[in-house]
Amino acid sequence: MAAEIIDGKKISAEIKEGLKDKIIRLKERGKVPGLAAVMVGDNPASQVYVNMKVKACEEIGIYSEVSRYPKDLPEGELMKKIDELNQQNNIHGILVQFPMPAQISEEKVILAIDPKKDVDGFHPFNVGMMLTGKPTFLPCTPLGIQELLVRSGHDPSGKHVVILGRGSLVGRPLAPMLYQKAKGANATVTICHTGTKNLPDITRQADILIAAMGKARFVTKDMVKPGVVVIDVGTNRIEDPTTKSGYRLVGDVDFNSVSQIAIAITPVPGGVGPMTIAMLLSNTVRSCEML
Amino acid sequence: MAAEIIDGKKISAEIKEGLKDKIIRLKERGKVPGLAAVMVGDNPASQVYVNMKVKACEEIGIYSEVSRYPKDLPEGELMKKIDELNQQNNIHGILVQFPMPAQISEEKVILAIDPKKDVDGFHPFNVGMMLTGKPTFLPCTPLGIQELLVRSGHDPSGKHVVILGRGSLVGRPLAPMLYQKAKGANATVTICHTGTKNLPDITRQADILIAAMGKARFVTKDMVKPGVVVIDVGTNRIEDPTTKSGYRLVGDVDFNSVSQIAIAITPVPGGVGPMTIAMLLSNTVRSCEML
Repeated sequence: MAAEIIDGKKISAEIKEGLKDKIIRLKERGKVPGLAAVMVGDNPASQVYVNMKVKACEEIGIYSEVSRYPKDLPEGELMKKIDELNQQNNIHGILVQFPMPAQISEEKVILAIDPKKDVDGFHPFNVGMMLTGKPTFLPCTPLGIQELLVRSGHDPSGKHVVILGRGSLVGRPLAPMLYQKAKGANATVTICHTGTKNLPDITRQADILIAAMGKARFVTKDMVKPGVVVIDVGTNRIEDPTTKSGYRLVGDVDFNSVSQIAIAITPVPGGVGPMTIAMLLSNTVRSCEML
Repeated sequence: MAAEIIDGKKISAEIKEGLKDKIIRLKERGKVPGLAAVMVGDNPASQVYVNMKVKACEEIGIYSEVSRYPKDLPEGELMKKIDELNQQNNIHGILVQFPMPAQISEEKVILAIDPKKDVDGFHPFNVGMMLTGKPTFLPCTPLGIQELLVRSGHDPSGKHVVILGRGSLVGRPLAPMLYQKAKGANATVTICHTGTKNLPDITRQADILIAAMGKARFVTKDMVKPGVVVIDVGTNRIEDPTTKSGYRLVGDVDFNSVSQIAIAITPVPGGVGPMTIAMLLSNTVRSCEML
């Protein structure tokens, strides 16, 4: 039996509809949520991401502004800009699109953003608030994964969730988000990585498997149990001469084989990706409500 | 075959010897590490803990001062004291002994302590720095557990560590400390709690089992595999009419049965407890070196 496809586009569209209503109510009170995006250099992927985020803001009524700097921008200039944005009353969320060029420390950038406007949820203060169970802004991709699970009817509570990958953007923060005692969490969580031995023995125990290690089609049918729910966070480019661009995107999961025995699975693209942007918008609206 | 006893008293004494040397070198440079303890009310357990900590400071040459307030102290007064200690140049670590009386918010207390003097490692900023892989002060009990494992020759790297309990002091921060890619870590980690189903199936997979849920002698022989390493974080009072006090302390592990098949196990008391204090001293010395 083919697995149910967990449709990230559809679920993120529902979330955006809900945000539209919130924004209308904010505007009635004279408040407009505002997101500032900052880019340094001309990394093509960064440009695509920033454009997608700005477009999503427009769609639902969030004010946005984008500052684009040349790739040799001195670190101090960027700090000055971040400080301005920290002070700016019409801005509720600050997004500095990584990666940064070598002369700029990404760690310093993260620390410079006011935690109250840190809608990416990267500031250590917000990371710590999450781990201590008093969440402020949660990081967008892990939060998007949690929302996908809950809204598709696969609440992780009481389930064994196995996470593949301990990267700073997904696995590392997602594990504590899912094992805490809270709504949409309360899972038994195992986190696996390059240091894990007997990996298939562990992945086969998963009620919910979250693949976030960045290896194209790594998870195969023999690594999961029938009835598993699979969230595929990977976006890997592989060569494909049949496409115009010469490549296509695949996840960390071998969709064709795994979808034969999973009960539900996210596609790539169209699964986790749209959720990440929806959560950025959600955090920005939340910030405007609080500030 | 009886298990090796992991001797927390002995290992913590070795750590304290190492700290003595560091303190001598600091004093040669005119610096004396200083720890300030603050107590509100007369909780007998808190008094015991604070006395133990102050005594340990004395032993190795750390300056300490203790402020004791009546249990009806207004929250604002405590905040004023914390702020003074934040400014005080001879103090490198601030320890507010919990629990606090009802009129004082423990969350506010934690946030009021300068993260640079937060030697308990409770401030969200420090918790976040830990989770993002750039540790500042690590929380004392999890850090003590990690040191116990490494110094007793049971490095968690590549092992499957199962943690029982997700409390804010132990399980919740310990899991990410052990799954990160770092020395003395790099373990596959599973965290279990009251929401976990089929618990024995999971605990029996543990190469290293860490019991921190606060249930007297909960872990029995049938829940572990032969050759497991067991760290028992529990300290539970049980009635014992044969003792003078009428009670004695036992761990979360049924020591008598589990020690028959474990390869190594910590006793209670004398296992994790002494390590927690040693790590508090270590963090205070570290703070003095950095400030």
